[in-house]
Amino acid sequence: MSHTTSQAYSQLMSETREAALLESCGAVLGWDEQTYMPVGGAEHRSNQLALLAGLAHEKATSPRVGELLQQLEAARDVEPDSVMAANLREIRRDYDRATRLPKRLVEELSKTTSLSQQAWVAARKQRDFPQFLPWLDKVTKLKREVAQAIGYGQGVPYDALLEEYEPGMTAADVTTLFDALKADLVPLIAKVKESGRVPRREILTRRYPIPAQQQFSIAAAEAIGFNFQQGRLDVAHHPFCSGFGPGDCRLTTRYNEHHFPGAFFGTLHEAGHGMYEQGLDPALWGSPAGRACSLAIHESQSRMWENLVGRSRAFWKWLYPRAQETFPEALGQTPLDEFYFAINDVQPSFIRVEADEATYNLHILLRFDMERPLIAGDLAPADVPGMWNELSQKYLGIQPAHDSDGCLQDIHWSAGLVGYFPTYSLGNMVASQLFEAAHRDLGDLSSQFARGEFQPLHQWLTTKVHREGRRYPALKLVERVTGEPLSHRPLIRHLQHKLGTLYGI
Amino acid sequence: MSHTTSQAYSQLMSETREAALLESCGAVLGWDEQTYMPVGGAEHRSNQLALLAGLAHEKATSPRVGELLQQLEAARDVEPDSVMAANLREIRRDYDRATRLPKRLVEELSKTTSLSQQAWVAARKQRDFPQFLPWLDKVTKLKREVAQAIGYGQGVPYDALLEEYEPGMTAADVTTLFDALKADLVPLIAKVKESGRVPRREILTRRYPIPAQQQFSIAAAEAIGFNFQQGRLDVAHHPFCSGFGPGDCRLTTRYNEHHFPGAFFGTLHEAGHGMYEQGLDPALWGSPAGRACSLAIHESQSRMWENLVGRSRAFWKWLYPRAQETFPEALGQTPLDEFYFAINDVQPSFIRVEADEATYNLHILLRFDMERPLIAGDLAPADVPGMWNELSQKYLGIQPAHDSDGCLQDIHWSAGLVGYFPTYSLGNMVASQLFEAAHRDLGDLSSQFARGEFQPLHQWLTTKVHREGRRYPALKLVERVTGEPLSHRPLIRHLQHKLGTLYGI
Repeated sequence: MSHTTSQAYSQLMSETREAALLESCGAVLGWDEQTYMPVGGAEHRSNQLALLAGLAHEKATSPRVGELLQQLEAARDVEPDSVMAANLREIRRDYDRATRLPKRLVEELSKTTSLSQQAWVAARKQRDFPQFLPWLDKVTKLKREVAQAIGYGQGVPYDALLEEYEPGMTAADVTTLFDALKADLVPLIAKVKESGRVPRREILTRRYPIPAQQQFSIAAAEAIGFNFQQGRLDVAHHPFCSGFGPGDCRLTTRYNEHHFPGAFFGTLHEAGHGMYEQGLDPALWGSPAGRACSLAIHESQSRMWENLVGRSRAFWKWLYPRAQETFPEALGQTPLDEFYFAINDVQPSFIRVEADEATYNLHILLRFDMERPLIAGDLAPADVPGMWNELSQKYLGIQPAHDSDGCLQDIHWSAGLVGYFPTYSLGNMVASQLFEAAHRDLGDLSSQFARGEFQPLHQWLTTKVHREGRRYPALKLVERVTGEPLSHRPLIRHLQHKLGTLYGI
Repeated sequence: MSHTTSQAYSQLMSETREAALLESCGAVLGWDEQTYMPVGGAEHRSNQLALLAGLAHEKATSPRVGELLQQLEAARDVEPDSVMAANLREIRRDYDRATRLPKRLVEELSKTTSLSQQAWVAARKQRDFPQFLPWLDKVTKLKREVAQAIGYGQGVPYDALLEEYEPGMTAADVTTLFDALKADLVPLIAKVKESGRVPRREILTRRYPIPAQQQFSIAAAEAIGFNFQQGRLDVAHHPFCSGFGPGDCRLTTRYNEHHFPGAFFGTLHEAGHGMYEQGLDPALWGSPAGRACSLAIHESQSRMWENLVGRSRAFWKWLYPRAQETFPEALGQTPLDEFYFAINDVQPSFIRVEADEATYNLHILLRFDMERPLIAGDLAPADVPGMWNELSQKYLGIQPAHDSDGCLQDIHWSAGLVGYFPTYSLGNMVASQLFEAAHRDLGDLSSQFARGEFQPLHQWLTTKVHREGRRYPALKLVERVTGEPLSHRPLIRHLQHKLGTLYGI
């Protein structure tokens, strides 16, 4: 590489790294806001966060970055498949997205979604969709404007929104995958219902003292590979994972004395996200190559540890004796298989975030089926409740009695997060496909889990996925690692196998 | 005020406020570093903090600030005794101090003190002063350079260093006050020793379960007026108070099951600092008028609540029954007066941070007596241990067996904090003088404390001291509030009164 190219690249890296450092300061403040901040600190905190976000944005969109990008894109000595090429591609993408949005639109969106979220909270409380309707309308229009400003080539406006969370994937890609998933999943879940079998659900709502839950969750997160020398688990109202940077990744969860799965599987889920953050290459921190690939890939890591590992029989063969010791009152007299069935209970329900591993995806298909026409202008915001209830009946076989159990349940649309939902189910598909590949590479994972051995899978994921950062787009990464294009089949195979045994179907 | 003046002033406020916002982001990160950060996060955190400090410095020293200051200083329509005049005076002071230091010196000082602190840790551990000597020498020389760069008018170089912590006060002011204090305090403490009386010290090292200490400390801090809706108390290795900004002030303490006073009086002390921060005018936040006056005034608030209130007999008349309920094993059978004597034990000892209310000041006098000649060049760094031990004998009547109990005990000099020590004893003097004035204004404070009423004193301090921010220099503020120039007499009167009763002297 020429001296000029290498010098320009190192300047670009330094600019990018400084913007990332500012964002990571914001991450610390954001974490504190959710965990320890006293109520009185809210206003000052929002001033601090706005300043940091503004400075980071200024850095990332500075004319200097644009010049360096242009210079480097014209250079003929950049290896096509190198880390450097990936960084240039991704910084260009971020730069274009950020600079194409007029300041007026960014500010209006920020103001509108802030008010819209408040309106959503009130409307959900009062089960009153009409109250929220004008805000849904405003946000939808603004998101359409965003799509126009960013552009979407030969595709549809929704592509421009999806790309924010899932770079390189289009509405058409998602539609193909989701249609196939729907075709297999809806009948599978219908069969579960027809089987008439149900687990003893009360097992999970017995008394699980919170200090014991805390200790048990931390021990499990540590056992699967989350490094507590470089991270923590704290309590927050909404569970999340925030990677501050090399050596520091924070997880949160919440405890309910009479609900075991919430904190436990929540912790495994966030630990899965956290292990991804901890597995990124610290030497590349601050550049795209040192950053998580996409939301779907991130979600694949959390779902894998939560569901494919944490809800497997092998995992509990290893951990159940310790669970019985830790919660003698709740589990002392309960056989492993009854517990195992209870944590894999499949039952259509209204609320997405409480849904099981299988029906969860139907909640996502429903939302995706509405987001596309909403942004395209083919679905009027006023018709959202009607279409929601219709699809709910079609996919889940149930209809909510009021909109707070239906189209008002999620914060996403009020917050302007359109194009975000699909990444959850894409994550489930990616998880299953990666898991099958790991199984091929590493031999029988179940017998490893039954011995409490998670290091081989963790190491495999670190090498194959985490260390690659954002070097390849998600679909390409999945194909490189598994040898196949992303498909819904591994997820269906996984569910068929597990539910087949449990429900005799 | 003319439109031009008012516009320039509001621009200056906005620049100053943004620099303060950046500093306050650093405060959040600094707090997290001391309380919750996992060990692995240290390197990334130092990168984050360095960036924020650099940006804040850049903001505060920008040519734009210099221009606005010049323009406003030339304006003829600024009221001499207004908040605006005070802000201009203080921003000018900070601006000059910051811009007079060459970048080379700032960087060298930062690098040297970072290494020097590491050397100090090792030297203290190994009780080996010669290991630290070259670093003390380097730091001393650099601080002399700092003093030269900043300037000190007709005074001495030490003035320029002291001014960083105690604006408007000179080495000559401190010398006068300290000489007078010394003349009265040394014989007073000698009399205590001669009295032969000692409290039952073991009372304080019985078993005080930590959860009970936590709850008891928080309740006491809340009772004296610290607002937990706008603040928290967490655990950290070094106790401190950090005001993030309006509505958010963090305190820390540390617990030892077998040492009651550490966490309890530590919490009252930090709560005193915190109540000052909480009492500042939020509308003026980000400008000097909305900032604490000086370190001595800050320390006066912490010492007042820790010692003048928290170690008073009236306070324990109110709280002791609850202490006995909370710690039945330790205090159930111990009469109030034995406990009260134990928490007011006066005894010369080696370590400053463990010293009692009276002898503490001798530790400060000793350090001040060495800092001045050290900076002036009249005391060679190599002669520090000798002079330390000599003064220790003279003031405290004891000599440390090794330097880790002597001149190596404090981090300050290794960190470049020269001119900081005097503010501790100045704070004690200010506390006593303010307390006497409050007593005059509010009537018998003791009977209020004995009823658990702290609101009158808290309100008085808020109005007279906190709300004034940095509007007046410390000495002027004290004189305005108490009607007298700062003097050592109120502190001596307080000690004579208390120790007179306890030791029969």
